[in-house]
Amino acid sequence: MELLKQKILDEGTALSDTVLKVDHFLNHQIDPLLMKEIGTAFKERFEDRGITKILTLESSGIAPSVMTGLELGIPVIFARKRQSLTLNEGLLTADVFSYTKNESNTIAIAEKFISPDDEVLIIDDFLANGEAAKGLLELVEQTEASVTGIGIVIEKAFQEGGEILRTAGYDVHSLARIASLTEGEITFMSGVEV
Amino acid sequence: MELLKQKILDEGTALSDTVLKVDHFLNHQIDPLLMKEIGTAFKERFEDRGITKILTLESSGIAPSVMTGLELGIPVIFARKRQSLTLNEGLLTADVFSYTKNESNTIAIAEKFISPDDEVLIIDDFLANGEAAKGLLELVEQTEASVTGIGIVIEKAFQEGGEILRTAGYDVHSLARIASLTEGEITFMSGVEV
Repeated sequence: MELLKQKILDEGTALSDTVLKVDHFLNHQIDPLLMKEIGTAFKERFEDRGITKILTLESSGIAPSVMTGLELGIPVIFARKRQSLTLNEGLLTADVFSYTKNESNTIAIAEKFISPDDEVLIIDDFLANGEAAKGLLELVEQTEASVTGIGIVIEKAFQEGGEILRTAGYDVHSLARIASLTEGEITFMSGVEV
Repeated sequence: MELLKQKILDEGTALSDTVLKVDHFLNHQIDPLLMKEIGTAFKERFEDRGITKILTLESSGIAPSVMTGLELGIPVIFARKRQSLTLNEGLLTADVFSYTKNESNTIAIAEKFISPDDEVLIIDDFLANGEAAKGLLELVEQTEASVTGIGIVIEKAFQEGGEILRTAGYDVHSLARIASLTEGEITFMSGVEV
């Protein structure tokens, strides 16, 4: 997705060989027009696949997911990283280790929102080691619904998450695939988007 | 906003005299089309006011804010409830006590995203005691920007937040104002929406 790649080059910062800061438009300040374009891109890739629900993770997955949900005309469920008083029964949980934050979080969804006949599109802002995606897959597995696809805004293709998920047979579509962040330079994978 | 009120009646649950559960469409599962209508409603109320930024709080404020930002053509900043590795310098913070969760959170934004000449619209999913709104106001105050308005999806008008903010001179626009949740029954304030 050219608009996204240009935005990453213009406003993103490679903080280290593994950390890309995109707080100007994705995970702190949000560019709503870019989110709409992201929604359109995911729609183009995943429409006509019978998807009935989008599952994402708070907080940075919410904006791209809601725009995709609007395009596809389906609800979005966001997994929570901690419990709230008004969300305390019928929970499904999974543990997610974050290498960026060096901590483990339990993520949770209410069981009632995904049924066995749902076709689920998982969306997240980043794919790196694949820990968050694996946690979301584990939640869907407990509902006995099907995972139809995985939509990622930015994939760090030099980390193993994408390969693990594709090898496992999942249809992973990343809108921007980073080949390297070495020495502060952001390089994208060449070739066709997957 | 009639669509929202109907949704609250159809899918909301009064868990107690003070707690309204709306996880079917706002703060766990999200209805993207409803969010779009909410964005349109806030646009109608706040357009032509020179607003340059929307400020909200993760996670449930993000969806209505992004739709409003799309309608107004301006960026959204969401305050975080805890720090992340890629967001650690130039932070402005405020403390917010949550009566629902009975805990205090430090909320934070990066200073660079709001400048003194910004006109800020604060958006949140709920207004009850006004603690979250006061925290967001405190963040904006530190940037020396102006708060042009406060947009609330659901106001619990039987709690004091709305009165405190309006008495302080803020232009608070709530799309649904709950008069009472007594005995499991959801009653709205009568009269014109404010």
